[in-house]
Formats: sequence, C-alpha cells, structure tokens
Amino acid sequence: MQGEVKEKAQRAKDAAHALATLSTAVKNQALLAMAQALRKRQADVLAANEEDLSRGRKEGLSKAMLERLLLNEERITAMAEGLEDVAKLPDPIGNMTSVTRRPNGLQIGKMRVPLGVIGIIYESRPNVTVDAAALCLKSGNAVILRGGSEAINSNITIAEIISQAATQAGVPEGAIQLITTTDREAVNEMMQLHGYIDVLIPRGGAGLIQTVVRNSTIPVIETGVGNCHLYVDESANLSMAKAIAINGKTQRPAVCNALETLLINARVAENFLPQISQAFQERGVEMRGCPKTRTILPNILEATEEDWAKEYLDLVIALKVVENLEEAINHIRRYGTGHSEVIVTEDYSKALQFTNQVDAAAVYVNASSRFTDGSQFGLGAEIGISTQKLHTRGPMGLEELTTNKFVIYGQGQIRD
Amino acid sequence: MQGEVKEKAQRAKDAAHALATLSTAVKNQALLAMAQALRKRQADVLAANEEDLSRGRKEGLSKAMLERLLLNEERITAMAEGLEDVAKLPDPIGNMTSVTRRPNGLQIGKMRVPLGVIGIIYESRPNVTVDAAALCLKSGNAVILRGGSEAINSNITIAEIISQAATQAGVPEGAIQLITTTDREAVNEMMQLHGYIDVLIPRGGAGLIQTVVRNSTIPVIETGVGNCHLYVDESANLSMAKAIAINGKTQRPAVCNALETLLINARVAENFLPQISQAFQERGVEMRGCPKTRTILPNILEATEEDWAKEYLDLVIALKVVENLEEAINHIRRYGTGHSEVIVTEDYSKALQFTNQVDAAAVYVNASSRFTDGSQFGLGAEIGISTQKLHTRGPMGLEELTTNKFVIYGQGQIRD
Repeated sequence: MQGEVKEKAQRAKDAAHALATLSTAVKNQALLAMAQALRKRQADVLAANEEDLSRGRKEGLSKAMLERLLLNEERITAMAEGLEDVAKLPDPIGNMTSVTRRPNGLQIGKMRVPLGVIGIIYESRPNVTVDAAALCLKSGNAVILRGGSEAINSNITIAEIISQAATQAGVPEGAIQLITTTDREAVNEMMQLHGYIDVLIPRGGAGLIQTVVRNSTIPVIETGVGNCHLYVDESANLSMAKAIAINGKTQRPAVCNALETLLINARVAENFLPQISQAFQERGVEMRGCPKTRTILPNILEATEEDWAKEYLDLVIALKVVENLEEAINHIRRYGTGHSEVIVTEDYSKALQFTNQVDAAAVYVNASSRFTDGSQFGLGAEIGISTQKLHTRGPMGLEELTTNKFVIYGQGQIRD
Repeated sequence: MQGEVKEKAQRAKDAAHALATLSTAVKNQALLAMAQALRKRQADVLAANEEDLSRGRKEGLSKAMLERLLLNEERITAMAEGLEDVAKLPDPIGNMTSVTRRPNGLQIGKMRVPLGVIGIIYESRPNVTVDAAALCLKSGNAVILRGGSEAINSNITIAEIISQAATQAGVPEGAIQLITTTDREAVNEMMQLHGYIDVLIPRGGAGLIQTVVRNSTIPVIETGVGNCHLYVDESANLSMAKAIAINGKTQRPAVCNALETLLINARVAENFLPQISQAFQERGVEMRGCPKTRTILPNILEATEEDWAKEYLDLVIALKVVENLEEAINHIRRYGTGHSEVIVTEDYSKALQFTNQVDAAAVYVNASSRFTDGSQFGLGAEIGISTQKLHTRGPMGLEELTTNKFVIYGQGQIRD
C-alpha cells in the first residue's frame, strides 16, 4: 500500500521531463484518442460505475452523492466531448512573453513551461478523472489523480482506458497516474512528497480542501469554497438587483459561485425586501434575516452568527440590512471566502469603491456571481477556481497550470 | 512570548486592508521619509549594531558572519538609497491587464492587487529589514519580519526607525512588524498562521530555506539555493567559455548565481581543461574532477557524488567531462536546483535544445549565470530569487509580490 504513492509519483516525475517538450500535435492526437477510447469502451465504464453505485446504495450514500457518482451514456459522451474541446484549445507551452533587450545587449524573455507533476485530490464525481487528465496533459504536466473511494471502480476503469490511449498515441508512460489505494494515508503521503509533486489541487467540499490546505507541506492551490455576497446599493436598479439575486441563488444552488447572503442598503430595504421575499418564496428559497430584516419580513427565521459564515450550497439565503457601502464591505471582509462578490448600483463612485476595496477572486458590478467559471470567462475548460492569492486566483485554465522560466540569449556577456 | 507572533500578525492583517488601496504618493512619501529617518538616526543604528557585533565576537561567530552583520556609514547610506530607489519604481497596484468583452457584453479584466501579509524569515544581514519593508510597502503589502538572533538589536532599531517614519507619513499602523522574540518557536508559529499570513519567504542558507519549505503549511516561496552549471559544448567559442566560467565562479563566489560545476564536452576537453585549469589556479580556485577530467588534469582531487550535489559558495569548482548535450542535460536534471544554467555554444540547434529542455529559473546561452538578479533583469530591486515553480520563478521584484483579481463590469447580465 504505502509504496504505491511514491512509486507512481516517481513514474510521473520521470514522465514529466519528456512531457514538457512534447509537441502540440502529439498531445492533441492523444486527447482525441482518449475520447475515442472512452466512447468505444463505454460498456466497461458503465459496468464499473454500476459496481460503485450498488456498493454506494448498500452503504447508504445520500441521493445527492449517488447522483454525483452516476455515469450514463450522456455523461460519458460529455466527458469525451470535453477531451475533444481541450484538444481545440491553444497550447500555452513554449510561448515567450516580455522579451526585452538590456543595455548590455542581453535578450531576456519569459518562456511558459509546465509546472511538472500535479496532484489532484477530489471527491465523488468520476468525470474529474477525465477533465483533470486532459488539462494536465495539454499543459504538459504529469498528473497523479486521487479520487474518492465511492468512485474507485469507475476511476480505475476510466484511468486505465485514457492512459492506455494516451500512451499509444505517443504520450510518455506514467503521464497519467491514478492512486488506487482508497486509504486516507495515501493523501497524507501525497502532502509530503517534496521533489516529486510540484503542486496539489484539492477539489471537493470544504472539509477536504481545509484538510489539504492545513496539512500539506508541498505547494497547494486552494479551490472553491464560496460564501458569495450581493450588495444592493441605495442607487440600485431594484429589478436588476432582484434578477441577479434570483439567478445567483436559484439557478444552481449547489455550486461555489452561488449567492449565500444578500446585503441590502437600509434606504431601499422596505421597497426591496418584500419583492425579493416573494420571489424567493415562489422558488422555495428559505430566508434567514438580521433583526432589521425581520421588522420588514417578520415571518422569517433570525440569522445567527453561523448563518453569515455559512456556504449553504442549498436553497437557503441570509439577508442583512446595512447602513452603507462601508458596512457591506466590512461584512464581506469578515465573512467572505474570497470567491465572488457583487454590487448592484447605478452610482459610479460606489462601483469604483467596491471593485477597488473588495478583495476576492472575482468582483462584479451589475452581473451575476454565477459567471465565475472558466468557460464563461473565456479560458476554455477549467480545473477549478482558486480562492488563494499565490500563483493564481479565480478560474484556472491551461495557462494557470504553467509557470515561466527566464531564457537569456547572450553573445559572451559577463558581469562587471 | 507566544502571544507576540499572533498579535503582530493580527495588526499586520488589519493594516493590509487599508494598505491595499493606499495612494502611490503616500507610499513614495513614506519611503523617502524612511530613508531620511535612517540617515538622521545613523548613530542609533551603529550603536545597536555594535552591541550585536560585540556579542557575536564573544559568542565566536565566524569572520564571514561578522562581516555580514556589520553596518557602517556606507552600508546605512546604501540602505537609505535603496529606499529612495524603490520610491522611484512604478507602482504595480491597480493596473488592469487583458480586459476582454465577452459575447454577452460582460467586460472582464484582471486587476493587480497586493498579496496581503508577507512574512520574511531571514538571517544575519540587517539590510534585509529595510529592503524587504520597502518592497512590501511599495507593493501594498503588510510585512512581518523575522530576522536572525545575531542581528536582533540592529533589526529592532532599524524597524522602529522606519516604521515610525512610515506611520508619520500616512502608512497605516501595523504595516511593518518585526518579531523581537529570537526563539525558534516564533518561526514555527509563523509557519502555521493560516488566515493571517498570505505567504512566507525564507531568505538565507539552505538549512533555513529547507526548514521553512518542509514545515510550513501556509504558502511559501522557496528562494535561492543555486547549484548552477555551465556546459561547454563542442562548438563553443572556448575563450568565451573561459571568460564566462571565470566570471561565474570568481566574480562573487558566495552568492547563489555563482557557478558550481563545469560540464565539458569530451571533444574539447583536452583543449579546454588545461586553459581553464591555469586560469582557476591563478585565481585560487580549487578544482575537483571526474575520472576523465583527471586523465587530463592529474593533479586535482577526484570529485565525489557529494561534489556534484554541492553548492560550494566558495572558490571550489567541480569539473566533469560529458559525451554530449544529452548527458549534460541529464546531469543538470539530476543535480541542479533549478536556479541558473548556462550553455556556451555556437550551434543553433544545441542552443535551442538546451533552452527548451533545461528546467530552471534562468537558462542562458553564451552569458554568465551571474546575471540572475532583479536589477540585472530590469525589475528594479528584488526580494529574492524563487527556485520554486508556483507563483513566480527567478528574481522577484514588486510585481511578484502581487496577485490578481478579476473585475467584471456588467449591465445586469444573468446566467442562462
């Protein structure tokens, strides 16, 4: 057991060197071959997935968990199409930026290169196995995948299919590695693998992410926990605010860029709250409010300290009346997770103040927080949304899986 | 004791919010005021430094350590000039890049923002206290400084002078914090301060850096260990190779971008080795060679496995004869630390292969590794040289102390 992680990490490291300079043509052919193999071996994937589902049912997994675990023809087709989409994206590797000539004649540029070996630790959705492998391969990185135990059979079958197809298309062996040990110890081992894994990306619930962030001694990119706010300014177009609030809360409540708290300026609270309350009630959204909110909406529950900090990921929302923009910004600073924050306003200075002072991956004026997403931002596919500050912030596409090296062209220059 | 680190980190965090939007004018005025205060209170700094020096002498610090610890009028002037230079650098904060308009009309851009709170852990040179504070302030970050115990009196006096001058010039109180506890426990505490410190930068010897890299659970930027190589290709201009080798090894042997190993193509070894050997002998450089090298230079010591891995930081160099470029690249991959690597060649394809395949912060063709430096690269001052891949690689100037946030301007867009 113990040996598996280190052994696979070593193989990934060995593959990384050749992967870094693999041609775009070979990488794209491999992605297309992986798609084709997935389609061709759909029956094997469905059979493996059925094993996971039946064990999950026996073990009493929730309906939501089983739904995330489920693969069907449509979802396998979506995975294959995802691979084909990644093949179409431009290859970031080898591009050079900001080449300058120094006074001594040295030409210095920054070349985009892969990170090396990327570890992905994720939960039940088996499609992550394919998405992560595709993005890492296209960006020239080796990947070590560590999925959840619920999906282990699905993941093993998928990884075997795609890594075999990749190797046959000319990708170095070892480029795509799946850890098959479902033991927690494997994650602990990954978090200490200096010299083998260049970065770990946890994808999943807040518990998993915090475990990795707080225990890993190798670099981590923290993803995805979103306690997102919408501030309705006194100058807001209230019907716009209402549409953005409804979209943010109800269009897909279980995702990280969904709204969790509305902050309403006291000058518009009496007008806005009854409107939004009716809209939320019609859509089955449970509301919890501050004392001022409850003087206007007396029938809702009182929001506790816990509500302000909570990422509900459900049809529940917290409502707070604030005196001014400063109070809204302070509330966001205290409870926000640095994901997506929105102001709805018609006031130019307030828009500027909000975008300058709120510190988050994405700060919006007059648009839904639901747009925080790689494809919506025009990055193509995404491997996750970074909520940390180091390396990259917000949706991570291919470029965010790379780093730079300085390349210097001289004619014999030495330093005085 | 225990309380100091957390208390100062809290104060730094409180300051960071206001610092992030502080005007360039106030930051520059503060830097100039800090320079002026240092000059004015030179006698206090020298007196504190004398305390450190006399304790150091009593405790038997090495000559090299005492030399690094020493401050004099010239060095204090250099620190003040450093502050004035940073005031002249462009302020990176608030710049927006790659603003695009999406098909739905959203305008999405990336705004450069500070990292937040930066922790610097460093060794005996007291000038780091000033340099680090200046770069962090100009880039809108709060800083927590933790210098070595040998320099504690110098650091306390310098930090008091510059932070007082900064506060008087309008910088939020708490922006510049020095940990006065010399206890190792303080470093351990810093390495766990999630939610307070956004990134730790260790500056110093390999031991300090490895301790921080391997134990910190908050993000780290690894700096500076350089086992740098020069490969002399068979097509090299040998007098150029000789000049670059001498410059790399002898111009300043104790720094991280100095050369530690020469790899010489077997086709030119008989011609090149006697020349370079004579030049090294004249400059007091001790050589250690592989068996093939010793057939040509029989009087030098044999290089052991340890020599290939060692950052001498001294007038010692390892010499190895290699069959071809591939062997050179493999040697660098095995023993290099990802700092600076050089090829001397007149062969276009070899130059391309070396720059594409060698993975390091700086990869040179026909120039000295000694150029890996913020000011030589045109970044202005530097806070260190990153040898890790995440976030940034190579010399780190003001921009490297920042991150981005996405700012999105809408007209009421919601997601379908």
